[in-house]
Amino acid sequence: MKAVTFQGPGHIRVESVADPSILEQGDAIVRVTMSAICGSDLHLYRGRMTGVEPGIVIGHEYVGIVEEVGERVLCLRPGDRVVGSFHTACGYCWFCRRGLFSQCQQGALFGFGRRFGDLPGTQAERVRVPHADFTLHQVPADISDERAVFIGDILATAYFAVNRAEVRVGDTVGVIGCGPVGLLAVMCAQTSGASRVIAVDVLEPRLHAARRLGAVTVNGRDQDPVRAIRDQTGKRGADVMIEAVGSAETLRLACQAVRGFGTVSAAGVFTEESLPFPAGRAFARDLTVRLGMANVPAQFEAVTELIRHGRIDPSAVVSHTLRLDEAADGYRLFDAGEALKVLLKP
Amino acid sequence: MKAVTFQGPGHIRVESVADPSILEQGDAIVRVTMSAICGSDLHLYRGRMTGVEPGIVIGHEYVGIVEEVGERVLCLRPGDRVVGSFHTACGYCWFCRRGLFSQCQQGALFGFGRRFGDLPGTQAERVRVPHADFTLHQVPADISDERAVFIGDILATAYFAVNRAEVRVGDTVGVIGCGPVGLLAVMCAQTSGASRVIAVDVLEPRLHAARRLGAVTVNGRDQDPVRAIRDQTGKRGADVMIEAVGSAETLRLACQAVRGFGTVSAAGVFTEESLPFPAGRAFARDLTVRLGMANVPAQFEAVTELIRHGRIDPSAVVSHTLRLDEAADGYRLFDAGEALKVLLKP
Amino acid sequence: MKAVTFQGPGHIRVESVADPSILEQGDAIVRVTMSAICGSDLHLYRGRMTGVEPGIVIGHEYVGIVEEVGERVLCLRPGDRVVGSFHTACGYCWFCRRGLFSQCQQGALFGFGRRFGDLPGTQAERVRVPHADFTLHQVPADISDERAVFIGDILATAYFAVNRAEVRVGDTVGVIGCGPVGLLAVMCAQTSGASRVIAVDVLEPRLHAARRLGAVTVNGRDQDPVRAIRDQTGKRGADVMIEAVGSAETLRLACQAVRGFGTVSAAGVFTEESLPFPAGRAFARDLTVRLGMANVPAQFEAVTELIRHGRIDPSAVVSHTLRLDEAADGYRLFDAGEALKVLLKP
Amino acid sequence: MKAVTFQGPGHIRVESVADPSILEQGDAIVRVTMSAICGSDLHLYRGRMTGVEPGIVIGHEYVGIVEEVGERVLCLRPGDRVVGSFHTACGYCWFCRRGLFSQCQQGALFGFGRRFGDLPGTQAERVRVPHADFTLHQVPADISDERAVFIGDILATAYFAVNRAEVRVGDTVGVIGCGPVGLLAVMCAQTSGASRVIAVDVLEPRLHAARRLGAVTVNGRDQDPVRAIRDQTGKRGADVMIEAVGSAETLRLACQAVRGFGTVSAAGVFTEESLPFPAGRAFARDLTVRLGMANVPAQFEAVTELIRHGRIDPSAVVSHTLRLDEAADGYRLFDAGEALKVLLKP
Repeated sequence: MKAVTFQGPGHIRVESVADPSILEQGDAIVRVTMSAICGSDLHLYRGRMTGVEPGIVIGHEYVGIVEEVGERVLCLRPGDRVVGSFHTACGYCWFCRRGLFSQCQQGALFGFGRRFGDLPGTQAERVRVPHADFTLHQVPADISDERAVFIGDILATAYFAVNRAEVRVGDTVGVIGCGPVGLLAVMCAQTSGASRVIAVDVLEPRLHAARRLGAVTVNGRDQDPVRAIRDQTGKRGADVMIEAVGSAETLRLACQAVRGFGTVSAAGVFTEESLPFPAGRAFARDLTVRLGMANVPAQFEAVTELIRHGRIDPSAVVSHTLRLDEAADGYRLFDAGEALKVLLKP
Repeated sequence: MKAVTFQGPGHIRVESVADPSILEQGDAIVRVTMSAICGSDLHLYRGRMTGVEPGIVIGHEYVGIVEEVGERVLCLRPGDRVVGSFHTACGYCWFCRRGLFSQCQQGALFGFGRRFGDLPGTQAERVRVPHADFTLHQVPADISDERAVFIGDILATAYFAVNRAEVRVGDTVGVIGCGPVGLLAVMCAQTSGASRVIAVDVLEPRLHAARRLGAVTVNGRDQDPVRAIRDQTGKRGADVMIEAVGSAETLRLACQAVRGFGTVSAAGVFTEESLPFPAGRAFARDLTVRLGMANVPAQFEAVTELIRHGRIDPSAVVSHTLRLDEAADGYRLFDAGEALKVLLKP
Repeated sequence: MKAVTFQGPGHIRVESVADPSILEQGDAIVRVTMSAICGSDLHLYRGRMTGVEPGIVIGHEYVGIVEEVGERVLCLRPGDRVVGSFHTACGYCWFCRRGLFSQCQQGALFGFGRRFGDLPGTQAERVRVPHADFTLHQVPADISDERAVFIGDILATAYFAVNRAEVRVGDTVGVIGCGPVGLLAVMCAQTSGASRVIAVDVLEPRLHAARRLGAVTVNGRDQDPVRAIRDQTGKRGADVMIEAVGSAETLRLACQAVRGFGTVSAAGVFTEESLPFPAGRAFARDLTVRLGMANVPAQFEAVTELIRHGRIDPSAVVSHTLRLDEAADGYRLFDAGEALKVLLKP
Repeated sequence: MKAVTFQGPGHIRVESVADPSILEQGDAIVRVTMSAICGSDLHLYRGRMTGVEPGIVIGHEYVGIVEEVGERVLCLRPGDRVVGSFHTACGYCWFCRRGLFSQCQQGALFGFGRRFGDLPGTQAERVRVPHADFTLHQVPADISDERAVFIGDILATAYFAVNRAEVRVGDTVGVIGCGPVGLLAVMCAQTSGASRVIAVDVLEPRLHAARRLGAVTVNGRDQDPVRAIRDQTGKRGADVMIEAVGSAETLRLACQAVRGFGTVSAAGVFTEESLPFPAGRAFARDLTVRLGMANVPAQFEAVTELIRHGRIDPSAVVSHTLRLDEAADGYRLFDAGEALKVLLKP
């Protein structure tokens, strides 16, 4: 089959690789009908993740059709249309029993090599999915691939960050960063009861997209975002701040722009062992700070229902739909900031 | 001044009564610019509340301008535009300190006579408001009277019921009863993250209004609402049911239409000492049931922000705006089911 | 093997029945080392449950050793010491995925006949346990059978009711009914942060047991329990009331003895289709009411840890330990109120 | 009157200063019957807080008798026995209305000079208390001064940190630091439902005190505390970690010793603008981190009830009770690590 492989920083190649097959009795083989390039794939592409073996198949966002299932699989059959979580979940361990699937003690990530469980990625024609009963979710027929492909990672990531921020109905929510995840966080905040979303970025096209979704926007190049947010909230700060970049600087901004007893919840990826953190501010203002990786299987149904009933349309952030063998172009465009979200169609 | 008085069941008269004046140092005098007739005023009108003294000024929904404040009032000044809670709250008692204002140990209701604290009602040109710092809330200039008048009771009631139902983003919420409170509950459920609202009533015009708000509707005359809700939720039942009628029968329906571990939250008024309750169902399905009177001051800001930023427009339920001296007509229309919501303008 | 069988109201017989065997690949066979008679077994014994087939093996509280497991069982092996939930849980359905195991869509009860899933009971030498990975829990070696046997039902029931009551640290908790479940609820309330527990019953020996656990007691024969609880709580009522009887009368008392915005949580069994309920009180006081069947698998670990670290000793309620073939005596004593809790040892 | 004054780092002097008097109508004058030296007083003593004016009266922990009240004071009368919060709370601002008193928009601290509101401290014979209705709390007669003096700061601080950690009944809670606040956190964790508390320090006498309270202890000099905690929790980590030191190093340890989806809640004081923070760990493990200053008035009653009903005895951490004019000795002993907690009696 054809698959997108990582050959080294900046070097992506579509190659022919062996078709996957059932290895464990909980596996399913999924024929991928749509995959997507994620910001974390870009980390890899840019060489920011060390120790990844050249030649691996990458990608972890996908939707497809079940072709084959192992004997232990109870809830899926060949022909089922599914979306997959970017991480696997066994359903049996201490964490999975509590619904904390993203901390599964046997969890692995697709498409990041040996360090994360050695699972070939999903930017391919087919993929083997371990623990299919919990890692996959059936997609209703009335949700298109273009929307469903968001359920398994970036919409789940935005939803997770907003959900953990415990938005109360009527709150003002700030979102720092208006990339794909940030824009989806704007949607999730609105759907979660925010009376108002204030979105911050430095790129005008992204702010334009946020405004189209109904957010108030602040361009960090023109204004101090902390002051701007405080000015719009009676000097108090936002009730909740969503960090959607993944840097020390934006985490600090979020802590400064949130009100006393507010919550800062990060949708961004943090991999640094240590980062400067505004502890004095967090102490003086009684803050709650949450970082983390989305608990996708726990949210499968909620996110699916929001799309199905038209409450959220994630396809609004799609800028390009390419063929799988154009993947290298997709990475290039995304890396250059010329694409917002790239989908790949086998 | 002119005021709407209760002369006995079915008998409302606009009369000239003495102007109110400051009696306690926490009082404010508010010049009413808009009041409204509430479903609970109808209870009184229909003679269902016994022991109410003929001749009292009635009404408890209002918006207006502060004319005078007592010496203890800290947060308000003459000229401030305000909306008032239908119940007072002292700010100092055990409950108020915990934000549980509707259980204020010195709490009273406007316009229901001696049994509820002997406060003249707000369907009048002026009203004395005890504990003004906590009972009143400033209204931003960009919210019209037609919208603001909902903040102090029926929108707060709908919001309270939905809020206590702990809707999770993506949930299916059922609403039984599509009168003014039920329709506002549909709006609140949508704003609180429901992916879908299923509204039940037996009157087609009310169901039509619910559909216009985006709800799926079930006419209880044509279908068994419990079966209809289960059919639309994979046989499980709705995640949350809002009861917006206030009867044993609708409470039972709500308990049967909600899924295991779901919550039934009542926006309806219950005054019966004892009512048949489906205990076996509640036990077998691990249900949570909440009844109660809205905690208005705790929600002032959230509800105001939702209106201000266009997330909820309560004026959608207004059917009539009359002059204060046409109040008797307003009661008649409302009682006859010919009006959905009647506003009164002095 | 020997097993306790139900022959009709008031008629229990220990008989020889066929040994169980693996029927489904998720089953385990457990050799029972200790079982117990539960208040719900007494319902059966007293003829209050209709339609139960004479001759069935009864009982649902037990601890034992795994003898054999089906091929799908992942987490257990022969020789493991386990306690079992009184209800089964599949681990895969909509509810189990959310940790709401007591609402498992394939759930069944042990020892109550066809209506509840036709599973032979556990007052026997051996028992077949479906969905063993989720229905059973490993017991640490340092917890005796006399304590572990409580994990699968009545301690879980008390814990569940207290847990859902959302006790805040420092609260005053009332408990109505000081039978085995009520006494365990006293312990759970204390462990959950209650500063004080007020226990109500009409039988002096049970009140004596509650006092020994540290509760303040009220004898409902001598005092009005509602007044007594209000007098001890500044006239407000208890923050939380646990109902541990299962009757309309005690549910009403609980609603009257709880403070505004308080929670009434029932540990009692309610099977009546309809019951009188103090709706007016619940409305006027903004109450939350929860009824339900314990979600045992979700609590396995918490309850086990509380016993293991000495925070709760459920064996304090044991009054009799009999041999399995003395079971008929056990039922007689329990029915006559001469036993508080009867354990059965094969 | 006599009062403890700060003359510069390491230099404390008891002096005669002017008696306080009512300045605002919400003030009360309290005759102090017991005060205490807090770890944050030590910060001042050690010169770690810059810009504090020499000569100010210091201290902020105290219990006493109301001598005089301003005209606005509603809930207190001369003769009332009270404990005071270390911070003031107005009761009317945006935060106070929501019960978030520690973020009061008019809030000030006692005894830290102009930067924190210029309020003379409480290590004195008398103190003026602004916003007395919310800043003070009546103490029941059956609680001694030695216990009550903890309600206004360090027990409240421990309770706050544990409370925000959302301990579930049965959890394993780790506590890093066994100074006075850490030991009180051990007590609070036990009272909040922890099945087990694992306490970490490097000083054997402190660990000895923790063991006497029932904690399992880890000496960080002898063992890696992270490994020790993981070893005792099936390699997962503690469900909750309480940081009770206030340093980057202990915050990092807490993040490493907590399990996935666990909460780190800090009782320590953090004043650094920026601190190294293990963001990668927090991200990979879906952690919640909370820092903050205790919300004392919100907890007055809960903490008081826990003491009154014997659930917590904070006097267990008292090592010295001195006369007010021996205060300089108290600071010396505390600074040298020879005292655990010093009380001062005028």
